[in-house]
Amino acid sequence: MRTYALDPASPVPLYEQLYRCLKEDLLSGVIAGGEKLPSKRALAENLNVSRITVENAYQQLLTEGYLQSRPRSGYYAEVLETLPQPVPPPKMEPAVPQEAPSPSAGQFPFSVWARLMRSVLLDSREALLRPVPGQGLPELRAAIAGMLRRSRGMEVPPEQILIGAGAEYLYNILLQLLGRTCVFALENPGHRKLRQVYSAGGACVRPVELDESGVDLQSLIASGADVLHISPGHQFPTGIVTPIARRRQLMAWLGSRPDRFLIEDDYDSEFRFAGKVIPTMASMDVTGRVIYLNTFSKTISPALRISYLILPPALLERYREKLGFYSCTVPSFEQLTLARFLDEGYFEKHVSRMKRRYRLLRQQFLAALEGCAFGQRVQVLGDEAGLHMLLRLQTPLPAGDLARQLQAAGVPASPLERYQFPGTAPKAPGEIVLNYAELSEAEIPRVLALLETLTAGEDS
Amino acid sequence: MRTYALDPASPVPLYEQLYRCLKEDLLSGVIAGGEKLPSKRALAENLNVSRITVENAYQQLLTEGYLQSRPRSGYYAEVLETLPQPVPPPKMEPAVPQEAPSPSAGQFPFSVWARLMRSVLLDSREALLRPVPGQGLPELRAAIAGMLRRSRGMEVPPEQILIGAGAEYLYNILLQLLGRTCVFALENPGHRKLRQVYSAGGACVRPVELDESGVDLQSLIASGADVLHISPGHQFPTGIVTPIARRRQLMAWLGSRPDRFLIEDDYDSEFRFAGKVIPTMASMDVTGRVIYLNTFSKTISPALRISYLILPPALLERYREKLGFYSCTVPSFEQLTLARFLDEGYFEKHVSRMKRRYRLLRQQFLAALEGCAFGQRVQVLGDEAGLHMLLRLQTPLPAGDLARQLQAAGVPASPLERYQFPGTAPKAPGEIVLNYAELSEAEIPRVLALLETLTAGEDS
Repeated sequence: MRTYALDPASPVPLYEQLYRCLKEDLLSGVIAGGEKLPSKRALAENLNVSRITVENAYQQLLTEGYLQSRPRSGYYAEVLETLPQPVPPPKMEPAVPQEAPSPSAGQFPFSVWARLMRSVLLDSREALLRPVPGQGLPELRAAIAGMLRRSRGMEVPPEQILIGAGAEYLYNILLQLLGRTCVFALENPGHRKLRQVYSAGGACVRPVELDESGVDLQSLIASGADVLHISPGHQFPTGIVTPIARRRQLMAWLGSRPDRFLIEDDYDSEFRFAGKVIPTMASMDVTGRVIYLNTFSKTISPALRISYLILPPALLERYREKLGFYSCTVPSFEQLTLARFLDEGYFEKHVSRMKRRYRLLRQQFLAALEGCAFGQRVQVLGDEAGLHMLLRLQTPLPAGDLARQLQAAGVPASPLERYQFPGTAPKAPGEIVLNYAELSEAEIPRVLALLETLTAGEDS
Repeated sequence: MRTYALDPASPVPLYEQLYRCLKEDLLSGVIAGGEKLPSKRALAENLNVSRITVENAYQQLLTEGYLQSRPRSGYYAEVLETLPQPVPPPKMEPAVPQEAPSPSAGQFPFSVWARLMRSVLLDSREALLRPVPGQGLPELRAAIAGMLRRSRGMEVPPEQILIGAGAEYLYNILLQLLGRTCVFALENPGHRKLRQVYSAGGACVRPVELDESGVDLQSLIASGADVLHISPGHQFPTGIVTPIARRRQLMAWLGSRPDRFLIEDDYDSEFRFAGKVIPTMASMDVTGRVIYLNTFSKTISPALRISYLILPPALLERYREKLGFYSCTVPSFEQLTLARFLDEGYFEKHVSRMKRRYRLLRQQFLAALEGCAFGQRVQVLGDEAGLHMLLRLQTPLPAGDLARQLQAAGVPASPLERYQFPGTAPKAPGEIVLNYAELSEAEIPRVLALLETLTAGEDS
């Protein structure tokens, strides 16, 4: 009979020590498939342990299927399949380093937020343990509807709002809702993630070109798109505001076939520095096929993943029927905190404060640029909105060099090319997108010095 | 010249009142496309307001594209496309009512959790405003690795862990990672959401039949599956633990083609009432193609959406390359709180407490059943694990009636049929799945009375 060295002084229980030893022998074939094991009594005597120790070890091996028990005969080793040869694991890439918080993150009223979190903890014990309705908590949906009424002039029934863990998650939901056989038209240039998410989700994605009013209608029609995903309030990165005439043309395109949809991505639209906020296309929708999307990641914190859709009634019905099984992806704690932050007016206060900050930063930058001799070699484009500026440089540098020099200088800017569909020709190679909102005033001279270098050698 | 009744006493600024009136006239065609508007000076005099009021109103209409300005001539109304006829919105279904918290939710150490949340708020201000790395915070991934080492005997590098907002979200990620052209084999019966999520994601889903050891190998091969998604530690709803011999056969199936994958969904496996926790298939993987998945929704709270994947190295590389652009869907606040909850041992304490509770409830139920005259007409199946029991009833009732009676009695149980693929024949129509974990001891007599009714008229 085999024997095993069991250690009564070990913190591992005796039965588990025995279980491990037996399992090793069963796996390695030392105990062959079909072999009869010693009886519990015999093994207990041999090892000088109690019968219950052997009993427990055998029981665990039975449960895991290493042994089988034959009535009135005893325990036998199971016959096990030989495992495939192990494949050597490939070398692992190092994980991506953590990003630093942006300077504007310091502007967030963290102490207010923390206070609201503490009050939610005190008041909502039960709500925090209850399953969340699939579309999100009614409290947050009502609070978003209230904020949209006050600050965007939109009348939205809370039932039409769908809460999700970030815009990327909601793009995937839209893909499933509208159908991945749809052709999705995206602005070119535009956000790269849109292209990445829709492509990874299996949809056909086509670029549409822009003119000074936004999406070019001919390019849209030529794309054969079923779904148009745009930011008419403030296009990224060009800053174009789509005027009412073009909006009406897009609405006519939408209305001319019953299976067309328009996704209005209102990302960034809070930060408009001149005049009033532009009314949304969703609020002028007569087709019932405009879907509104916005996110709190930019306005509050990227560490808070809360975005929302407003589904027109027919799509809401389709959502409930086709995708109503999905659980809400946002914890109730964040939903309740954000609901209070909105209801108590902190969100709008925070957005105004940020707007003042960005407006000032923008003015400081433009004034400093104007004061420079090379300033005339830099043209600032895009409307007075958003957290980016489009700069058109008179530069002899090809786009690749431009990218390298921007990166080397650590300035939050990229060549416009970066936001274009692969294979589409850049319109103007000297255009760069400056994420000025990430700058502090003290960094402006550094950016100007870089712009001077980039435009050096050009007479204007 | 048109005139408008502006109210200086209104809280709405004069320029905005004027802007609204003009916009209405421009949209309705009262001011026709191409028509010249009065000069700012003339309109200001006519309305008895300042020029700057008219200036601001015109400026906003210019920005939105209702007007165009022609140098040295003035402002003209834009020609606008006629809007499509509005479609009457379909009637909206009422939203789904909120679910009540389950009785077991009361067992959650909420005060500990709230204390940890408060400590995260105090300590981690900066972390809460920083973007979260795509795979999740390093703190939480290390804490999960530690918990898996202690309670599951698994050695997992934190780099291989991917955090996501709930299991359903991660199923979608797996679909994108493995490719939606894959055929996914699912246990039949099994969780309905799996089928729903994979189907909504566009994948081909096939049922595989179960025998007493879990997935039937012939049925698996016949399905033509590339990916097998199973719960070998504790199948839902049958409670089957897949023994080592079958696991090895599945591993051989996996190893026999380089493009096969196995998803080990370890949902529920914490609640094992006899013996040790069953070792995972991921820990015996030699192919590098077993993906481990688990969630905290069942063990902590369904209002907390945190689940995780362990990706083998080759798939991790593929993930970073193909899907590395995705942002993490879980707020950093929940991640940091859960990391402390795990690191400080509260999770394991909570799971043991829940295990004791469920074990007791289970024993009480089984003892009460045994004491009943009709008890012999009810057979309890499934291993000693999980939050469900499978009951086989001797009943004359067809499955439809069974479902209706269960629902009418408000007992947390459903016919087994409910978990089967549509179109596959139920093996035994008298089988019901009892979610006993949702019961309190006081409710046991009610459940027994129901079981008596359901089996009435059957001699055994």
